[in-house]
Parts: sequence; C-alpha cells; structure tokens
Amino acid sequence: MAEYIESLQKLAEQFGRLEGVGRKSAMRMAFSVLDMSSETANELALAIIEAKQKIHLCPICQNITDRDLCLVCADEGRDRSVVCVVSDPKAVISMEKVREYKGMYHVLGGVISPMNGITPDKLKIKELLARLSEGEIQEVIVATNPTVEGEATAMYLSRILKPLGIKVSRLAYGISVGADIEYADAVTLNRALEGRREI
Amino acid sequence: MAEYIESLQKLAEQFGRLEGVGRKSAMRMAFSVLDMSSETANELALAIIEAKQKIHLCPICQNITDRDLCLVCADEGRDRSVVCVVSDPKAVISMEKVREYKGMYHVLGGVISPMNGITPDKLKIKELLARLSEGEIQEVIVATNPTVEGEATAMYLSRILKPLGIKVSRLAYGISVGADIEYADAVTLNRALEGRREI
Repeated sequence: MAEYIESLQKLAEQFGRLEGVGRKSAMRMAFSVLDMSSETANELALAIIEAKQKIHLCPICQNITDRDLCLVCADEGRDRSVVCVVSDPKAVISMEKVREYKGMYHVLGGVISPMNGITPDKLKIKELLARLSEGEIQEVIVATNPTVEGEATAMYLSRILKPLGIKVSRLAYGISVGADIEYADAVTLNRALEGRREI
Repeated sequence: MAEYIESLQKLAEQFGRLEGVGRKSAMRMAFSVLDMSSETANELALAIIEAKQKIHLCPICQNITDRDLCLVCADEGRDRSVVCVVSDPKAVISMEKVREYKGMYHVLGGVISPMNGITPDKLKIKELLARLSEGEIQEVIVATNPTVEGEATAMYLSRILKPLGIKVSRLAYGISVGADIEYADAVTLNRALEGRREI
C-alpha cells in the first residue's frame, strides 16, 4: 500500500533522483526518514538546502567550495607554477589523498563529449586560458580519466596549450600497484610496456 | 578536499544516517545534490519535511498513512473478521502484493526483543486487544518474520489471544516456490516436512 501513501511515494521518488539510488533503496530511505525524529528529518532537509545555497565554484580553479576561495587556491604554501586539470571535484579529492601533489588545480566541469552535447566551450577552458595568461603557470598536468572522452579532452588541451609555450603532461598509464598482471587488460599492459622505465 | 567543504560534508553525514546508506554512497548522493537545480533540491528537502509531517499511524491498524484512515481500514469491501498481524508497514506492502488477502491488518511496530529493550508493552498489542474486544474479529493470522524474535512474538500473541476464543494462525513454513531444495537450510526443510500436505 506504500504506492498509496502519497507523501511516502513522493519522498521515495525524490530520493530516486540521487545518483546511484535505485527504486528499492529509495523506498528504504523514505521509510528510514519516517523512523527519524522530526528534528533529525529537519536537519537532513536543511542540510540539502544549505549545501545547495552555500556551495559554489571557486572563482580561480572552478572547484566547488563554500568559502570565497577553495582551500587549495587560498593556501599560500602551494606551488602556483603547476596546475593539474581534472574533469570534476571528485578527482580533486582523489588527487589530494595522494598528499604528494603540492600544485594547484583546475576543474573543467566535465570532458569533451560531442555525443552528449559537451563541446569544449561548455567546459571551463577559457577560465584556464585566463589563468595561464597571467604568466605564473609553467606546467599543466592533464589528469582526465583514461577514457575516450578523457583522452580527447587531454589531446584538445595539449593542442591549444602547447603553442602558448606551456609544458603539458599527462598522468602515466600502466598497471595498478598491487594488481595482478594476469588480470590487467591488453591495452593497459601495452601502455605499461610503452611507458617502461629503466631500474 | 571534500572533507573541508563543510556544507558538503554535513550533507553527506546526514545522508549517511539513512538506512542502508554507507559513507561512499552518502558522499555520492551529496555530490548529486550539487548537480541538481536549486528547484529540484528544494523539492527533495520539502518532500522530507512533508512526509514527516503528514504521515502518521492509522488509528485502527497502526499502519502508516497520510490520510485519516489507511486505505485498507477505509476500504468497505475488506473482510473485517480476519486480521493479519505484522511487525511493520513494509510487511503490509508485501502482503498486499499477494492480492489474495482480503482481510485487515494490525501493525505491531516491531517484535518482542528483550535484548533490545522491546517488551510487549512497547508494541501495539493493547490496540490489537481493543480491536478484538469489539467482537467482529474471528481469526488472527500472525505474520511476523520467521526469526527468533518473530517466533517469540507469535507465541506470546497466541498465548494471550487464544483464551479470548479467537482463532490464531501462523503463516506456513516451507521451501520457497522456485527455490532449489539443494540450497534450502535444514531447519526450513524440517519445517517443510512437518507441514507436508497430501496431494
């Protein structure tokens, strides 16, 4: 009869709009809202509205932030001569976990994908060019995903940035640390061979 | 750096309070709120508040509803002489999917579990007794889960209801339709043997 408890059904539908939430999970989540105290449910609702209101793009690197500048751009200790270009904020989180990278970021907000209507002008490329024109940046590390679209975006960036006299690099391809070569795909193994280094 | 985008982190924590939502899913959901339009995010927040405000227990069967009476209790066509006792509203949904059951329901709001502090007085048993005292109900079908707690609850109900001259029955145990006997557990198989029927 949940189909007929209109407000429960509506809530489940709303949860179902979130990424990675299927119909059954959405219904379970809706039920779990009913089990919450009114206070907790209000906190959840408020957190949604607040996050949406407060979080905006950092005017420099286009990463998401709820402050004037994101923490990386605001950090005086970071190396402003290197910019790592990523497709989305989640990639910044992964890169930051490495703790080795001390440069800056630039978030494109996607990758070139004409099939999905994402042409280069839809990405934050002109903002990147504006940053580069300031002259401080010497190297751009393209860290888009190793997919067709990620590759195309990397090639596109390389082609427009190299003429500006900026070093453009790409993350190395190869086998994952701790992985089993038996299970590595042929393309990755081929890239790992191509990129082999003397030891 | 998501750890440092306070409102994003807060939202992910709130999502993490929902049943079946882990840390990673919660963060993915929080990100997906950022990808929504403000309107959609507001709709989600509003649906949470609304569901919480509108949904209450049906005064007769204690199932959840957003109307005065739940649809089953409000339905004049149902058989008021049979009551199926279940632990929670989700069980009602499953029973309704059968489409064969035309009786009423009574939702206990849990099962007896002294370990978790759930004693019979915490369940809607006195509400059930009040319904029974009206004299219309002739049979109570106990449909609690086939777990230790569900069994204990069924035994408890049987012990207090039988002296009132009411027929108390329990759902049959046995192998699932379409299941493979090879994979049925011994306890279930034993129950299926005990409950065997002539064909």
